[in-house]
Amino acid sequence: MLNSSQMTPEEQLATLALPCPLHRRLRQLSLIQADRCLGLSGRSHFTNASGVMTGTVGLDRSVADGYNAARACALTQLAVLKRDLGSLEAVVEIVSVNGYVNAVAGFEDSPAVINGASDLLVSVFGEAGKHVRAAVGVSALPRNAIVEIQMTVRVGQP
Amino acid sequence: MLNSSQMTPEEQLATLALPCPLHRRLRQLSLIQADRCLGLSGRSHFTNASGVMTGTVGLDRSVADGYNAARACALTQLAVLKRDLGSLEAVVEIVSVNGYVNAVAGFEDSPAVINGASDLLVSVFGEAGKHVRAAVGVSALPRNAIVEIQMTVRVGQP
Amino acid sequence: MLNSSQMTPEEQLATLALPCPLHRRLRQLSLIQADRCLGLSGRSHFTNASGVMTGTVGLDRSVADGYNAARACALTQLAVLKRDLGSLEAVVEIVSVNGYVNAVAGFEDSPAVINGASDLLVSVFGEAGKHVRAAVGVSALPRNAIVEIQMTVRVGQP
Repeated sequence: MLNSSQMTPEEQLATLALPCPLHRRLRQLSLIQADRCLGLSGRSHFTNASGVMTGTVGLDRSVADGYNAARACALTQLAVLKRDLGSLEAVVEIVSVNGYVNAVAGFEDSPAVINGASDLLVSVFGEAGKHVRAAVGVSALPRNAIVEIQMTVRVGQP
Repeated sequence: MLNSSQMTPEEQLATLALPCPLHRRLRQLSLIQADRCLGLSGRSHFTNASGVMTGTVGLDRSVADGYNAARACALTQLAVLKRDLGSLEAVVEIVSVNGYVNAVAGFEDSPAVINGASDLLVSVFGEAGKHVRAAVGVSALPRNAIVEIQMTVRVGQP
Repeated sequence: MLNSSQMTPEEQLATLALPCPLHRRLRQLSLIQADRCLGLSGRSHFTNASGVMTGTVGLDRSVADGYNAARACALTQLAVLKRDLGSLEAVVEIVSVNGYVNAVAGFEDSPAVINGASDLLVSVFGEAGKHVRAAVGVSALPRNAIVEIQMTVRVGQP
């Protein structure tokens, strides 16, 4: 489960600026466990400085903007896991990522955008951060976010 | 698992007008069980009086129309569960809801639409009705429905 | 698990032209196992002759084009399963299909497109090929593909 730098996921995470405070929702859960899998609600990225980054890739945002937003989405999901599980130690592997990109019709490069999330997960978890994935372009995301990420992770026995 | 009114989900459901008859599909299942989880096919809402409510939020439909449609989608999924399981007693909790909103490009309020489904589920199941969720805007839904809801629920051992 | 022709899924598959070679991705997995379920990454169709079929249903592609593309997507996913599992013998049933159709805004017939995938799965696996499903229209898919299919399958114990 170690990545190439031989740091644990917790140690990797400590080198990153986690978003804070996290937005809590009234009507839904941040995560739920079913058997050994934890499902996480879809989340947009969140940066301490500016909140949600808004816009549409291909209109007023570039692929690089989208990549950074997707990276921040994944980091936000890890912050949720750390808050609710106490640490990342229980995470055995990342199972799946569904990435939605707010993009103009016909945009072809949503994988290049969602790579921002995938690269972050692999940098934290190493091989255990690799996952199955779908990346699609949609016409509208909550709060006009550029990217939203839904994730499933596998956790170990308590 | 009881909601605030201390009625069981079955008793709550009995106070609601369930859609009838439900549409059966030739090529797909309404639900499938894998371990303790039941996955349900995506469903649009269905009202006894008028069938599927059609339209696009932000164009010819309001957020309130979408909210009502999402509520009706969730009610339709509960009707499917009741038909196929006999009752809701086996349902331990609602795990996840993926909500798709037929909306104009740039529509920012899909969560306010999908709240119609989430509120219905919490009103029937109480805390056990809370779930992880993603709400995205898409450009096209089957039969021009305003909303489509996909759900996963956890069931108890037989 | 046998279909009407009483051939095994492997025998059925042998009658079909599987795509080859399959595209490998650096950052993501083709499939992952969690308990008895295998999740597969979203895939566009792939034909030996022409690679990915591109276009938008309702603009420059017909529903029939989309149907053929969805069928080819499902065939590609089966080729992934065969490559990574060795054969289809371990597949107990198809659990779910999420189909995304690259379509003009307001396109109403995404189920008719995704039927291409569902029909292929039932032709190979018989009743065990039936699944829960969602079919939505989106504004943008990777590499401008007409269709992308995400699947979950249940596998037997090793």
